[in-house]
Amino acid sequence: MKNYILTILIIIPFFVLSQTDEKVISDIYTNSLTKGQSYNWLDYLSNNIGSRLSGSLGAEKAVAWTKEELEKLGLDKVWLQPVMVPKWVRGIPEFAYIETKPGNTIKVNICALGGSISTPSTGLKAKIVEVSGVEELEKLGRDKIKDKIVFFNRPMDASLINTFESYGGCVNQRYSGAMEASKFGAIGVIVRSMNLRIDDLPHTGSMTYGDISPIDRIPSAAISTKHADLLSGMLKLDSNIQFYFKQNSKQLDDVLSHNVIGEITGSEYPDEYIVVGGHLDSWDLGDGAHDDGAGCTQSMEVLRLLKLSGIKPKRSIRVVLFMNEENGLRGGNKYAEIAAQKNENHIFALESDAGGFTPRGFYFDCNQSNFEQILSWKSLFKPYLIHFFELGGSGADIGPLKNETNVLSGLKPDSQRYFDYHHAPNDTFDAVNKRELELGAATMTSLIYLIDKYGIL
Amino acid sequence: MKNYILTILIIIPFFVLSQTDEKVISDIYTNSLTKGQSYNWLDYLSNNIGSRLSGSLGAEKAVAWTKEELEKLGLDKVWLQPVMVPKWVRGIPEFAYIETKPGNTIKVNICALGGSISTPSTGLKAKIVEVSGVEELEKLGRDKIKDKIVFFNRPMDASLINTFESYGGCVNQRYSGAMEASKFGAIGVIVRSMNLRIDDLPHTGSMTYGDISPIDRIPSAAISTKHADLLSGMLKLDSNIQFYFKQNSKQLDDVLSHNVIGEITGSEYPDEYIVVGGHLDSWDLGDGAHDDGAGCTQSMEVLRLLKLSGIKPKRSIRVVLFMNEENGLRGGNKYAEIAAQKNENHIFALESDAGGFTPRGFYFDCNQSNFEQILSWKSLFKPYLIHFFELGGSGADIGPLKNETNVLSGLKPDSQRYFDYHHAPNDTFDAVNKRELELGAATMTSLIYLIDKYGIL
Repeated sequence: MKNYILTILIIIPFFVLSQTDEKVISDIYTNSLTKGQSYNWLDYLSNNIGSRLSGSLGAEKAVAWTKEELEKLGLDKVWLQPVMVPKWVRGIPEFAYIETKPGNTIKVNICALGGSISTPSTGLKAKIVEVSGVEELEKLGRDKIKDKIVFFNRPMDASLINTFESYGGCVNQRYSGAMEASKFGAIGVIVRSMNLRIDDLPHTGSMTYGDISPIDRIPSAAISTKHADLLSGMLKLDSNIQFYFKQNSKQLDDVLSHNVIGEITGSEYPDEYIVVGGHLDSWDLGDGAHDDGAGCTQSMEVLRLLKLSGIKPKRSIRVVLFMNEENGLRGGNKYAEIAAQKNENHIFALESDAGGFTPRGFYFDCNQSNFEQILSWKSLFKPYLIHFFELGGSGADIGPLKNETNVLSGLKPDSQRYFDYHHAPNDTFDAVNKRELELGAATMTSLIYLIDKYGIL
Repeated sequence: MKNYILTILIIIPFFVLSQTDEKVISDIYTNSLTKGQSYNWLDYLSNNIGSRLSGSLGAEKAVAWTKEELEKLGLDKVWLQPVMVPKWVRGIPEFAYIETKPGNTIKVNICALGGSISTPSTGLKAKIVEVSGVEELEKLGRDKIKDKIVFFNRPMDASLINTFESYGGCVNQRYSGAMEASKFGAIGVIVRSMNLRIDDLPHTGSMTYGDISPIDRIPSAAISTKHADLLSGMLKLDSNIQFYFKQNSKQLDDVLSHNVIGEITGSEYPDEYIVVGGHLDSWDLGDGAHDDGAGCTQSMEVLRLLKLSGIKPKRSIRVVLFMNEENGLRGGNKYAEIAAQKNENHIFALESDAGGFTPRGFYFDCNQSNFEQILSWKSLFKPYLIHFFELGGSGADIGPLKNETNVLSGLKPDSQRYFDYHHAPNDTFDAVNKRELELGAATMTSLIYLIDKYGIL
């Protein structure tokens, strides 16, 4: 009998607790799917503001507008955090063609990579040499590369299930291709777009010159996958064909911009901070709907859903819309710098920056015991088909907040379609499904709710 | 020491076996994602053949073309199974408007429901009464319904995670709305489209008159969700507004069509049959890309991937492309009837008929011990993010094959976007993502491989 009573005493509170969590999480999902705001916000951000490259008018409009929207939510604090950001501009549209013989040209679709210098104003024409990666440059040697345009054409590996892994296996061509090729005397670089589909869209993205002196820097552009295949096929027929491209990009001086921050101050542990965020800047070609308008509006929605679901956080919950993830990470670094200066105890941070697709779960960057604590909540997510809880990365913007004790996390949406839109002109609102976006927001809110309630042990 | 050896003896074969299965399944996925044919097939089926309503020219073209394609695969047998199917035709496009007063009209988008009779050739105009379901008819009573058009407007429940459940909670309005409303003297029925989005597209689908005599039958059409909201809003302002619609549909005599069947004959147990299939017919408004071109081309791909991956099945594997799932299920019934006549032992059947979206897992219709056998394979699917293994339904076409001992299964893709396209003009090839389709085909092939290898215990 004693055992029986003891069991009851142990089981009942657990049962009550767990029933409550189930109910709260169910309310969060229902509110997101039936009274959600994330989709309307994303509509405005994508269609009324549009692209938001750091330092652009769009970025500044987005800062002002998201601050206004957060203020409407009745949070405890909303503020802008100043941060200096790089300003790179594309200039007038790029132009490129393949020339089989003088006067015989085929126009191809390219875009300057973010951070690249311009070509000479008359453009650049040269023979082109195809490689499947920076590793191949050494093998070819300076003789075969000097005065040529290097064409990096290693495609993303379609056999990998996680498309971010495919991206990871290719992106060094884009990021450091120009830097490496210039060391062998190349005069320009063309990179196959980081896209698993064969289509007409060039995908931009960041690149670096490292510590190469300005005089040795060479222009670098992405070419659409369809035209990469075309170019490669033509090179096989005739290695003497020429490639012409002209781009008009320019790096200007840094300008002032802002992270946008909103806070619900904790009722019991106001000095423990939980951050949820995405990056407000985007590349300039599309409207940054998936990357990362989705993550921003989902993060804003987390605080709104907490309030709408009647949850009064014990800890301080902040939404942070980071500026300049794409070409500098200045916002993420600044936020962490200020947090350190103020000695703020950030126990948890969650980033959504992998598109507004059906959520599958989370990656975590934490120690084993914190991970096990989180795994104990996994069954609460099962009704929502959230099944993926793995150690791994988190998010670029929140990365600088990592310390020995806290937990960072990244939302993991379904990744199959992400690189169809990533950094490309078609990253627009119509590519986002309302329910998929809303399920992501609800999933994030549910995790934030549990972290706030139980803390990081 | 004895125990040690025993352990080795038990563990090693298991390990080897399981390593082999991992490798085979990995090859299946890689082949589907890098050498797949499902997407090209779907392109042809959607864009060169198009819609395939039973009895239509499209359906007959699809029968001939899929038979040809299966013949190219070098299967052991390919044949057509004759089946008589209903033939319903839409006729010239529908036309409808809301009339606030004579001469003051707003055009709205409707489509006749499959199986509905035509309106009179001059159309039908009457007052309209909105209900939220067939249950409400009784409450309103004959007086308020007689000589009116009944407007069924219960929306799909957005709070449910599985959109098929939302559909299940609404579809009786479409299926039996006209039959029920006619009993109360209604002269026509308009049904809110089964769509979770607010957009301009009417979604068709099957309806029935049950045993109502031809003279009492009334025409029934679907209205787009946007216009359903408009109509509902206008009715709240003025319940006297009139609704006009004209449709030109007609049920013709049954015609001969075919199921398309291909078989790899089993090397050890040729008399044990495993079926994988989808339905080749579609509604007439779009191209039937998701419903169910995707399921058909994935099913064809299963047999192709088995061969490509060097798997020689022990049991006979059949792909069956069923005719007439949408408005009759004649193909599914015919296949089961012939299988019973021939005393064929169908141990397993798998259907894909929930769209070509990222696969999440399977539903199973089987006893507990078979289910546990299948669950023991679950970890093999984890690298592919296939996590959903639940008892539940299977597929309409394979349902008639169920007996006490066999196992039926339905592929469960992500359901969030399905009803954006279901039975609507936008169910076209561009709505299907290549990788999502290919992952589905690989997932199906992997399960078929395991069922074939280990049998149903």
